[in-house]
Amino acid sequence: MTIVRDDVRATLLAGHLAHLTTVNPDGSPHVTGVWIGMDGDDIVVAHLTDRHKLRNIRRDPRVVVSLVTGGKNPIGMDEYLVISGRARVVEGGAPALAQRLAETYLGAGVKFPPIDNPPAGYITHISIDRVAGVGPWAHING
Amino acid sequence: MTIVRDDVRATLLAGHLAHLTTVNPDGSPHVTGVWIGMDGDDIVVAHLTDRHKLRNIRRDPRVVVSLVTGGKNPIGMDEYLVISGRARVVEGGAPALAQRLAETYLGAGVKFPPIDNPPAGYITHISIDRVAGVGPWAHING
Repeated sequence: MTIVRDDVRATLLAGHLAHLTTVNPDGSPHVTGVWIGMDGDDIVVAHLTDRHKLRNIRRDPRVVVSLVTGGKNPIGMDEYLVISGRARVVEGGAPALAQRLAETYLGAGVKFPPIDNPPAGYITHISIDRVAGVGPWAHING
Repeated sequence: MTIVRDDVRATLLAGHLAHLTTVNPDGSPHVTGVWIGMDGDDIVVAHLTDRHKLRNIRRDPRVVVSLVTGGKNPIGMDEYLVISGRARVVEGGAPALAQRLAETYLGAGVKFPPIDNPPAGYITHISIDRVAGVGPWAHING
């Protein structure tokens, strides 16, 4: 089991929009922007409806989560984080997770999703295999 | 031939670090952060040395370029751009392109790469097939 470093965990929880890359049926990459949270050492993503990316994950669990952190390295280059991992889709729980993430991504006190009786949806859990990018976490695992 | 919309072109040239996704030999996705420019309607990326992503592109030209723009949609969600396209690697020209992009990404007057006699390197040209994301360009082509 991977133990996520504290600086990586803090960066994942800081409200940066993440790019979730999955593999299409034809082998091409598919990228969408997602809000991310953590559940233990897994990255979690909420989905109110069944989407293309969930079908991709059920067929091929290999995913990448990447994000720009807002920090700069010593020569002024943008720091960023690239997480390679394996995803699985679990039914239910999306509204509560989406509400929790909205407090980070949209602001405290917001109601999200902005509808009554949202569907139970899905949560994607991503187990972290490798951490890379530019920053203190570059070329380390965990 | 795709004609790139003015708002998409302006966003691509605004100095946002981009995520370049390529396909690994085993079919898994590979993501790195890159500086991007435009050459006509192609997205261009400079590489001083031959890298894993270039070997991926030579084997499978299907790539995605994605970036967060800094804008927000009407309910406060981050806008982002996802470009699917086909890449090809051309030898030479990397130092001049890297210098041009560094003026955008690092600041006016910077010398980049910060070495004398850099290698000629490679330029990746990405022909745009599809534009998606969240923003005025969502679900349009071009």
